[in-house]
Amino acid sequence: VRLVQVTSRSSAGRPLAEAYPGLDTDLVLRDGTDPGDAEVVFAALPHGLAGELAAGWRAEGRTVIDLGADYRLKDADEYARWYGMKHPAPTLLREAVFGLPELYREQLLGAKLVACPGCYSTAAILALYPGLRSGLLDSDVIVSAASGISGAGRSLGLGTHFSEVNEDYRAYSVTGHRHVAEMRQELSIDGSVPRLTFVPHLAPMVRGILASCYAGLHSGASLESLIAAYRDFYAGAPFVRVVDEPPRTKAVAGTNECHVHISAQDGKVIILAALDNLLKGASGQAVQAFNIVSGWDEATGLDAAPRWP
Amino acid sequence: VRLVQVTSRSSAGRPLAEAYPGLDTDLVLRDGTDPGDAEVVFAALPHGLAGELAAGWRAEGRTVIDLGADYRLKDADEYARWYGMKHPAPTLLREAVFGLPELYREQLLGAKLVACPGCYSTAAILALYPGLRSGLLDSDVIVSAASGISGAGRSLGLGTHFSEVNEDYRAYSVTGHRHVAEMRQELSIDGSVPRLTFVPHLAPMVRGILASCYAGLHSGASLESLIAAYRDFYAGAPFVRVVDEPPRTKAVAGTNECHVHISAQDGKVIILAALDNLLKGASGQAVQAFNIVSGWDEATGLDAAPRWP
Amino acid sequence: VRLVQVTSRSSAGRPLAEAYPGLDTDLVLRDGTDPGDAEVVFAALPHGLAGELAAGWRAEGRTVIDLGADYRLKDADEYARWYGMKHPAPTLLREAVFGLPELYREQLLGAKLVACPGCYSTAAILALYPGLRSGLLDSDVIVSAASGISGAGRSLGLGTHFSEVNEDYRAYSVTGHRHVAEMRQELSIDGSVPRLTFVPHLAPMVRGILASCYAGLHSGASLESLIAAYRDFYAGAPFVRVVDEPPRTKAVAGTNECHVHISAQDGKVIILAALDNLLKGASGQAVQAFNIVSGWDEATGLDAAPRWP
Amino acid sequence: VRLVQVTSRSSAGRPLAEAYPGLDTDLVLRDGTDPGDAEVVFAALPHGLAGELAAGWRAEGRTVIDLGADYRLKDADEYARWYGMKHPAPTLLREAVFGLPELYREQLLGAKLVACPGCYSTAAILALYPGLRSGLLDSDVIVSAASGISGAGRSLGLGTHFSEVNEDYRAYSVTGHRHVAEMRQELSIDGSVPRLTFVPHLAPMVRGILASCYAGLHSGASLESLIAAYRDFYAGAPFVRVVDEPPRTKAVAGTNECHVHISAQDGKVIILAALDNLLKGASGQAVQAFNIVSGWDEATGLDAAPRWP
Repeated sequence: VRLVQVTSRSSAGRPLAEAYPGLDTDLVLRDGTDPGDAEVVFAALPHGLAGELAAGWRAEGRTVIDLGADYRLKDADEYARWYGMKHPAPTLLREAVFGLPELYREQLLGAKLVACPGCYSTAAILALYPGLRSGLLDSDVIVSAASGISGAGRSLGLGTHFSEVNEDYRAYSVTGHRHVAEMRQELSIDGSVPRLTFVPHLAPMVRGILASCYAGLHSGASLESLIAAYRDFYAGAPFVRVVDEPPRTKAVAGTNECHVHISAQDGKVIILAALDNLLKGASGQAVQAFNIVSGWDEATGLDAAPRWP
Repeated sequence: VRLVQVTSRSSAGRPLAEAYPGLDTDLVLRDGTDPGDAEVVFAALPHGLAGELAAGWRAEGRTVIDLGADYRLKDADEYARWYGMKHPAPTLLREAVFGLPELYREQLLGAKLVACPGCYSTAAILALYPGLRSGLLDSDVIVSAASGISGAGRSLGLGTHFSEVNEDYRAYSVTGHRHVAEMRQELSIDGSVPRLTFVPHLAPMVRGILASCYAGLHSGASLESLIAAYRDFYAGAPFVRVVDEPPRTKAVAGTNECHVHISAQDGKVIILAALDNLLKGASGQAVQAFNIVSGWDEATGLDAAPRWP
Repeated sequence: VRLVQVTSRSSAGRPLAEAYPGLDTDLVLRDGTDPGDAEVVFAALPHGLAGELAAGWRAEGRTVIDLGADYRLKDADEYARWYGMKHPAPTLLREAVFGLPELYREQLLGAKLVACPGCYSTAAILALYPGLRSGLLDSDVIVSAASGISGAGRSLGLGTHFSEVNEDYRAYSVTGHRHVAEMRQELSIDGSVPRLTFVPHLAPMVRGILASCYAGLHSGASLESLIAAYRDFYAGAPFVRVVDEPPRTKAVAGTNECHVHISAQDGKVIILAALDNLLKGASGQAVQAFNIVSGWDEATGLDAAPRWP
Repeated sequence: VRLVQVTSRSSAGRPLAEAYPGLDTDLVLRDGTDPGDAEVVFAALPHGLAGELAAGWRAEGRTVIDLGADYRLKDADEYARWYGMKHPAPTLLREAVFGLPELYREQLLGAKLVACPGCYSTAAILALYPGLRSGLLDSDVIVSAASGISGAGRSLGLGTHFSEVNEDYRAYSVTGHRHVAEMRQELSIDGSVPRLTFVPHLAPMVRGILASCYAGLHSGASLESLIAAYRDFYAGAPFVRVVDEPPRTKAVAGTNECHVHISAQDGKVIILAALDNLLKGASGQAVQAFNIVSGWDEATGLDAAPRWP
């Protein structure tokens, strides 16, 4: 792999090593969105923009790994409902593969347009899919998730100001967060859409998401059979571990791993999934998908130390 | 009020101002549990111990404000089930008043034995009681709560070691936390025990609890009527505010307040309650109860700056 | 005291209780800098602006408590050197009293224009003045200080973004920080300007400054006599405590106190001063000065719990 | 390299992956200090113990990389003075090589006993050695350093309790920290011992040390020549970078790098050195030394992501 260039709207012209301290590189951030002679484009853009640009990149024969939301939802009407705009290239939606390797490993091989899932969606889907797929879980589900502040990106606002968020814990988007649409789409089993309530929270830390999911166990089903279903489902997944103790975000920080734990309390099932929102929840998963697209070992390049933040 | 003495098992003999930096006092921590000539004893002891001692203190005519768990559960069998020991003084259970002023203000006036609720219980009960009491909420309830590390007390262990818990977020006691017994007892309406699933989490901060509660809305009920029921219930409560934005633990840190917020997502109700686990969740609420017991304004002495931690 | 109004440039029109969560007030933030019928104006403005406005306010007979830098330096040339602009009202510099009560308590009584010192300056001057004044310390001094992030104010930038500053510690302004001019002015004894090197650092916490000061002990002087000089100097100061253990910022957070500790290592003296940069380093000290100006007990109103952040 | 075994006194019998969450290994921690058939022993033991055991290990022909203090000081009397005990094997002191590769790369090749420096010492020596060696710096030096809490190890106490140290910043060991002996030894140039005052501080973060060093510039010397001396000295050092902006601990966290910055304020020189106390300040440097001892590239194995904490 040869890194052709890196672009940035807010830091164009600055050395990459200055914008992201600690990196040892001479690359300078370029303005604009022209990928030069790159065969593969990783796009991390505001919604709407990648949707437009991807059509052109595809027409030029490039492969697109989109970290944004534009190609995640298969239904253009759902997109319009959640993002408040007409989808810029609805005909491409069919071509796009949802970039969650644990569900779409086969479809990703050779794919030309990959729509990487959101950070919360990755955690919630990995937590719930095997249980719903196996038919052992009820489809009335609560996802109560917490994320570190880096989930808000590098944008500036009081919501990311250290003095405002340190020693604070709070819920947000309580009446509906956009990621719920992806979760419902991917957790629909044979056309049956689950009833899914999702409330995200902010915890005073940099990296990490823990999705705490609550659902009923089907009558007749046992916790043991449910855990077995998860172990089966993730048997061949190098980055998902079904763990015996409740997972900790710190144990997955800086890695592309997702740790999943299943337990029950008086018949209510609790499924916990922990991951690093910047890796398995974003760039790490994009690289994992890119590896599969390219026919390589999906773990290639994913064991190095992350540098910032 | 005259402070007669302060005792401590771990710091006996040390000046109080050394054990709790910042306090400007000459008091020295005494060993043992002899209250001297105090008329009122505030007890913060491991379970079992306060249960034993309180019987003697009551026999001596003292008033007891117990911050521990021994007198919270009315049913001695439930106590035995959750605390793994026979209750040391079951006959006193009838006399004890549950120290949550918003529910038991009248019973507290002149009470001789007060059982202050646990920190999580205070948040969950304040979040759910008005909704269940009003009959507008379903009684299948999820309480997904997060607490700062001070909830673990001053005891030492890797679980409170800075390097182990900073930049970490995790669930614990997933198969059942003792506070769920108090919650179920207090949230039983006319003998009907709710189905309540409670999972506590640890957030990397010192103070604060946010209880995120999820329940169904009874068919025919509206969110507006539910919010009105909360506003009515807390109309005379100086420390509980029904707020318009999702509450933040930082806004109540250092105070005896509890902020409650009610919203809904596709028919599922989300009730959030934020408080400072060391104040409204512990010592602050104990002082509030003591004020009511004594016939004083319940806010007396509760506006000063807390000192540690 | 009656609070007439609060103005804000960035949050004009918003309720104060929304801009600063937790406050229980109906006040709405006004735009502009018109103080209405206020007899006393507390100004916290960018440098230059308060300098201009204060002249008008003084002409209208109002008392001005300025938390900014415009009236701290007695020498208009020094002001021009450090702030890059001509002083807007040099004739008022003589009237201004430096608002550090421990040095200027008598001059503050009835003062009409008070120039409150910077947060770092307060810590460094309280740490060094008694030692230099007593003639026991050498005048070649290092001030290596660390501040919490709230010292940067509420302005937005990567420098206050949680993800950028949490788990980070760094020095800044290494070639010269503006507060050094105030320190040199106030630490000049009988016209002799000390050689003072000042390097500020940022620690990943909200509140608190610790100034670690290093100086030589004059030959013949003893550490004991030095400590005695500090105890004498601060004997009547209600907010400064000479403490026996190295002070901790957490012990003074939320208070108007400054804790000072004096020790030595092989003849080099180390003086540590800890304070809350938002209270003794800013608004708390302004209220303290205002109390003295008004002829009241200087501690009036300074024992309440701070609310944000 | 084959990892033969890992021993632990406090966690003997537990799986390594449980004691250090996130590691994916089946190794179980063994009790005792028997190195089995290991040719190389990495020792991280309380002072005194490694000193005793190392003699036996050396007699058995093993190579010893000691991360503790027992073989750092060349003078057994200095050892007795700082550690309060007779040195257990003074005759081995001559054989021991001080494990700071940037100063002793040649001596480390093939060494049998390596005494890795302390974390603060590594930062202070890397910051000051080139300046003192070049003769451009005065030898009256202040080292004011701050460390993250992991510097205290995994031992339990209020000093590492999250609630006690979060939002706190403080100095400790103000009258003399043991690392000052190593610093003085290594910074003595041609037998001339510098006057060195060292005060460590604790910052509320997990990893990182910043040593802020203050010294006079020799008359006639220029800042430019001083910076050039540092660039020359570290030209061949893969892990030390002389940087243009004040370094940040976060930029070196998780790496074996040390970033050094040199500036001046009115003739006083400020040298800042940042490193990760658990890597370049401890285990990373031990691996770096081991690589050199073994004749390999000194960066071998040092680019992987660290896992805990």
